[in-house]
This record gives sequence, structure tokens and C-alpha cells, in this order.
Amino acid sequence: MSTDLSFLDSLSLDGRISRGSSDRTEHASDWQTRDVGIEPDVVVFAHSTEDVSRVLAAANDRSIPVTPYAAGTGLEGGALPLQKGISLDLTGLNEIRSIRPADQQITVGAGVIGSDLNDAVAKHGLYLPPLPASGSISTVGGMIATDASGMQTVKYGEVADWLLDVEVVLADGRVTTFGSKARKTSSGYNLKELVVGSEGTLCVITAATFRLAGRPAQIRRGRAVFETLSDATAAIADAITSGVDVATIELMDSDATMLVNAHSETDLPEVPMVFVEFHANHHIEEEIEFCQSIFASHNLREFDLPESEREMDAIWEARENITYAAAEWKPHLRESEPGDVTVPISAYGPLVDRVKEIAQEHDLLIPCFGHAGDGNLHYFALLNPDDPEMVARSDAAYEEIVEAAIKLDGTATGEHGIGIGKQKFMEQEHGSVSIDVMRSIKDAFDPNGILNPGKVLPPVND
Amino acid sequence: MSTDLSFLDSLSLDGRISRGSSDRTEHASDWQTRDVGIEPDVVVFAHSTEDVSRVLAAANDRSIPVTPYAAGTGLEGGALPLQKGISLDLTGLNEIRSIRPADQQITVGAGVIGSDLNDAVAKHGLYLPPLPASGSISTVGGMIATDASGMQTVKYGEVADWLLDVEVVLADGRVTTFGSKARKTSSGYNLKELVVGSEGTLCVITAATFRLAGRPAQIRRGRAVFETLSDATAAIADAITSGVDVATIELMDSDATMLVNAHSETDLPEVPMVFVEFHANHHIEEEIEFCQSIFASHNLREFDLPESEREMDAIWEARENITYAAAEWKPHLRESEPGDVTVPISAYGPLVDRVKEIAQEHDLLIPCFGHAGDGNLHYFALLNPDDPEMVARSDAAYEEIVEAAIKLDGTATGEHGIGIGKQKFMEQEHGSVSIDVMRSIKDAFDPNGILNPGKVLPPVND
Repeated sequence: MSTDLSFLDSLSLDGRISRGSSDRTEHASDWQTRDVGIEPDVVVFAHSTEDVSRVLAAANDRSIPVTPYAAGTGLEGGALPLQKGISLDLTGLNEIRSIRPADQQITVGAGVIGSDLNDAVAKHGLYLPPLPASGSISTVGGMIATDASGMQTVKYGEVADWLLDVEVVLADGRVTTFGSKARKTSSGYNLKELVVGSEGTLCVITAATFRLAGRPAQIRRGRAVFETLSDATAAIADAITSGVDVATIELMDSDATMLVNAHSETDLPEVPMVFVEFHANHHIEEEIEFCQSIFASHNLREFDLPESEREMDAIWEARENITYAAAEWKPHLRESEPGDVTVPISAYGPLVDRVKEIAQEHDLLIPCFGHAGDGNLHYFALLNPDDPEMVARSDAAYEEIVEAAIKLDGTATGEHGIGIGKQKFMEQEHGSVSIDVMRSIKDAFDPNGILNPGKVLPPVND
Repeated sequence: MSTDLSFLDSLSLDGRISRGSSDRTEHASDWQTRDVGIEPDVVVFAHSTEDVSRVLAAANDRSIPVTPYAAGTGLEGGALPLQKGISLDLTGLNEIRSIRPADQQITVGAGVIGSDLNDAVAKHGLYLPPLPASGSISTVGGMIATDASGMQTVKYGEVADWLLDVEVVLADGRVTTFGSKARKTSSGYNLKELVVGSEGTLCVITAATFRLAGRPAQIRRGRAVFETLSDATAAIADAITSGVDVATIELMDSDATMLVNAHSETDLPEVPMVFVEFHANHHIEEEIEFCQSIFASHNLREFDLPESEREMDAIWEARENITYAAAEWKPHLRESEPGDVTVPISAYGPLVDRVKEIAQEHDLLIPCFGHAGDGNLHYFALLNPDDPEMVARSDAAYEEIVEAAIKLDGTATGEHGIGIGKQKFMEQEHGSVSIDVMRSIKDAFDPNGILNPGKVLPPVND
């Protein structure tokens, strides 16, 4: 028996309600296309905050589950409608509400794509620096909901560090704004920060105000090549603690390079590489030299910082091709779910060493890469999805890596969020008392449990 | 009839419980020594997280109010025991728990004084940059509880931006840690950020981990003098939006300068002054010249950036003497409560203009100063406390200024917090829906309402 959702037809949502098969299928999965086999009963394409408010108020009265959905670029299943009901599509909230260049601020609907936001402010010489790698396909609402960050977070912080206020609709349909357009405030509880990373389980984000930065006058990108993985991780930690003003510092291990060589028919040296980007308004050479002087004491083989855009792009292509290369390496192998653990910088080397041990123990190829300057490691195993024994080894390796990161004072996820993929690590990372507090917060916001049920918090044990 | 607090005597708190008159009086006021005339029944000097846990568990069982108290340097009455009961003194939690130079992290008890933290890490070349002006007398727990910031926030953010995790005791005595020692995390609800600025109303902070920064190689301080207040505020906004890398940028208006001249027998020009500090690892001159080039287009009279420490100190003395000067200006006048409004940078000039209008309308002297680079304005009126009509004019002016700031998209408090002093502006700033959410958060954390009752949230209207 399916839930009675006929009430939606009386909410003045003409043409914005779909019960069609293709819409329901599309809203049943995210970027990892996890096949949990659950489709929403209906998809509502909200075009305004008022739409969201009407849907939530009515759904809350009837205890109907509502799962917010935006670009579907999440990696942890946060947008999957586990209890069916309504998939609330927010991509229609794509209005640039206002740009205030004198304050370097922009207010946008939650459905605005990151790169569209940047296009809108480009003529003022402004941009939002810390977009995630998915910034050209993901929405700002999704970035806030997952506490996203990216390659330039080492210099500029997370997306949320640029968030001034957030308009939300509460479970009962009431609309309010958390935060302030002032640069800082000590007024009342930090509800804005509580929304960050809450993955649509506390309220639905409908708009956001960000501060922006001026584009740096000088940008240089390049690559350092080291003898060993330990040399590369030690060099990164040394650069960070020495205060090198680097915008991006990314690791790519020799397994990842091997995949890229196979994919792109290149002959990059199959040794660890570190990709760097520098931003400055003047004297960028000084900062590059400072970085090189630190790298030099860690068995640096090459340090290549070209001046032309074309050469910079060529060098960085390898870093950007890792996942494509993995997808095409061997016809029967695909990537496992991507890992996203993060540790204090001194633990980054030990963590990478441990990943390589775990890979060996489970006889798997596990390339490592990621935003090393933040202590953020991405990895995946290459596995044959039709080989259950290999899938089991990959799952075991994945869990052991997350557990190793938590033991090293780290976190199960630096930027992808919990969704359904990492719930099993929540108690280990936070402890049962903090989980209890999170549950009480969830109950305070969403007493009927309609908002994105089954996500973030681990299932309650009987 | 006084509350029965004899249960405390069975909690193994030997010598740490005081019912003495001087301790009770001392814990009845904060830095503004507001005379609300309410003393706690008892002061408990906690020496450990375990002490805090035992006291809260027992008080919660009996619904006894507990008001956390640390250095008593708050400005909004947040530490006053409005419902008597227990004043829980946390200054004994002053242990440096661990220093991890390889991660540039320190974990300290909540009672550690800011400058003591910095002394502890100085030998590693590290420091916590954004201490408030009270950093040498206030505790880190108090800074977190009020979401404090200071002169260098324009470059380094708020104290909380450097907070990685926070150990807290919940109302029922359970101990847990919110946050992560990893540089970033998307794991679960942002409980750490919720504690920031909650002023002891949600839980009691017992320890904190901060990341630290290396000391900059170059520091230069100086002063710019402008023709008019509008020139000064326009120059500040221009410097901020142009991306000048300034560590501190402070305004001081001619009324403040007049007070300092009277106090210090100096003959500073009684025109608006802007105090700047620059931090860099190299080429600090370039950044100073960049700043000067911007200031030059706003009727800059003087720009004085001396090289010697002695001359820099001499120039900055005026900025540091404002409050002393006010206290001694005329024997019958004292300062009103300090204002702490903050607005988007483009509204800073209009706000300051409005303050001067309000001063005139109420026939008051209201000197303006503060962390202008953040849009944070401090001010006070000079008033005769024995003249009720003048006190009423000052109170009216204070309220009008806060309301003007809120109308300019600002906040009632940038860094001092709400306490009891700014509760009346909470609904105007946040709206009733957000206040409702804050109340539900309070109830979730503290169902018996024992933690710092009567603070932050405005009283419920009947």
C-alpha cells in the first residue's frame, strides 16, 4: 500500500509534482548510484521558499518523509529517500537574489550551482574560493548541507567559513534565517553552524549569503616529485607547519600515477607527486622559493613551477584524471566507494603508510590522493563487483582505514559527510554521549522525524 | 528560605566549597560590576572535569541553578547568578594538558588564561592569534562561551575559528568532547560550534584544543590620520574590500582622542585616527605601501609607520588608553555600558554617522572606536550616574544605536555576547522563529533549566 500523497495536489504546486517513473528513478540515487532500490513516491520540484514551506507544513502534519534533493552529486547517499515519501528537488531555487559588491557578499537560492555563483560575481573581480572539486555541478545548498570543502581549503577554509547566513524552512514549514550579514556576531546560539553538515535532517536550506574574496593577482601551479611516499608526506607536513602560504597542496601516490599513465599513455615517473598552487598579490616567487627550500630537505627529485597557463594545465592533468583513469584501467574492475578520512597533519604520513599495509594485507590496489595540506586523504580500492570475495576484502579494507584514521585522532569524513555510508563509524568517532546529544537536537528540530529519515545518526539499537 | 545545598558536602569537594561572604560577593558581578544584588548561595571551586561532573549531576537531580564563572571579565552579565544557587568557579581548571608542536595544537583546561596559553607555546614559535583585548586576564573557556574575538580578527578570524575540539560536561554530569583534532570534518552535527557563544547555558566547557600559528617574521604598527570621520570609515572599507592583508585596523574618533589628550597631556590632532598592524613573512613594505595608496585617496593627512618597537608603542598608546582616559575625564562622569554592534563593512560609515547624530540628539558625548575592519564598533556615553535624567538619555541612545545597527543588517554584539545586557534585542535581531528554535535547543541540552538560568534567551512573555 502506498502512502496517500493526494494532499500535495491541493498545495498550488501546478506542474511541479511528478509521479513519473524517470523522475522517481533519478531521485533514488546520488553520484555513487548506490543501488538501495528505494524510489520516492513522488518528486516535488520546488521553485521557491514558499513551495518548500507549503510542502513541509503539510507533510509534517501527516508525518510523511521528505528527503531534500539537489544536484545529486553527493557521495554518501545523503539524498536517497530511504523511507520513500517525497523527494523535494531544490534545483529550481536557482535565483541570484542579490549581489552587494561593496560588502563582497552574495545571496543566492540553495539550488544555485557553485560555478554559476562565481560567474555572477566575476565582473566585480570576486569569487567564492573554497568550492569543492564538484563545484561546477553541485549546488551551494548541498555544499552547506554536507560541510563541503576542496582543494583550496588549506588556504581559504571550508565553504561554510564563507557562509554568513542561511535561510531555512523548519520541519513544520516555518521560514527563518540563521546567522548574520555582519562579519562576526556573538548573538545567541550558533544555529547557522548547526545547519552546516546536517544533511537535510534538521531543516531544509533554501538560500544562503556568502562573503566573497577578490581574485588574487598572481597564481602559479606546479608539481613536486619525491623519492618515496614518506618523503612526500613529511615534506607536506613540514610545509604546513612552517607556514608556507600555499593555496593547494595535493598528494598523488605512485599507484594513482600508474593508473594515469595507463589511461593517458603518459610516462610520468611512478613515484609520489605533490601538486601545489600558490596565490598572492605580489612576490609569489618568494613563497614558491620558501616552499622549495622546505621540500628540498625531503629527497625532492623535481620541482616544476611553469609560468604558462598551458604548461600548468598539462602538469595538473594527471591529478584531475585519477578517477577517470581508475574507471578505465581494467574492464572488469571499478572503483569502490571513495574514502575521505582526515587526520592531524603529523598523522598523515603514518595514515598513508597504514593504508598501503592494509592494501597489501587484503591483496588490493588502493591508490591514495587528496587534500594533503588539510590532512584529508582520498582513496579507493579497485574491485570486481561480480566477485563477492573481492568486494568483501575491499569493504574490510575500507573499514580498517577509517578506524585507523579515528585512532589517529582523525575523522571518518573530512568533506563528504555521513549520509548512510559512514553511519557505522559515528559512535566510534564521537562516543555515545555526543550521539545522544545529536539525537536530542534532531528531536528538537524535527519531532515527527520527517526530514531525511535514516541519515547521519546511526540506527538506534534495540 | 535558602536552598538546601548540603548535598555538596558529600561530593568529595574538600576545601573547594565556599559559603564565605567575600567569595559570594566576588561571584555576584563581572567586569562591568552590574549591581543586580544577587549573590550565589555557594561558590564551588572546581579543580577538575570530574569536580564539574559531580556538581552538575547532583544539582541537576535537585534542579539547583548552576552558573559557570571564570575570570569574571565578561561585559554583559553572563556570569551573574540570577537565580542564586551554585556559582561554579572554573579558574582551577588551569592545566596545560598537552602541546603537540608537530600538529601546532594545544589542549588546555577551560580556566587557562589566554596569555598563559601563549607563554606555554612560545618556545615552539607558536601562538593563538585572535585573542581578545582581555586576553591577559580572561580564560579560554570564557572566550569560547562568549564567542570572543579581538584586534587581529580581521586577519585571523575569531577565537572559535582556531578551536578544534571542546570537552564539556552536560547538565546531567556526563562528560564528552565535541569536534575533532582533524583540521576539518563533515562528521555529524556541529556541536562544537553550538557550544561557541552559548555562555554556559547549554553545558559547561572544561577543556579545549586549539590549533596555533607560527609567529610572523615581520610586524609593523602605525597610525593614519584623516580629515573627517567619513574619510576614515571610507578608507577602512576600501582597504578591506581591496584585500589589503592587514592584521589590525582600528578606528578612534576625535571624541576619543580628546579624552586621551586630556588624560595623557598629549596634543594629538583631534581628528579621526586609524591604527593599523601588519604581519608578514616577507615584503611587509609592499603591503604597507598598498594600504597607503588606498588611504591616500580618502583625504589622508598623515601615515606614520615607524620601524622601532618604542615608536610603535608610543603611537599605539592612545588607542590603548581610551577607557582609562574616559574614566578619569571628569570626576562626576563615568562610562556607560560599552556598545559592541557590528555591521557589514559598507554600513560602517553610515553607522558611525548615525551614532554621532544620536549623541547630538541626546546631548551626550559618545566616543567611537573599535575593530573597524570587522565592522565592529565600540562606544560608550559619558554620564553622571547620580543624574537619572542623564542615565535615561544614555540608555535611550544605547538602544537606538543597537537598533540602527540591526537595521543596517548588523548584530547587537560582535564579540561580547548577550548575557543579560542584550536580551532585549534578541527577537528584533533573530525573529521569533529563530528564538523558538534556540529555546528548543536549550530544552534539549538542559531540560531542568539549571544551567546559567536567565541568560541569552529573552524572558518568555506570558
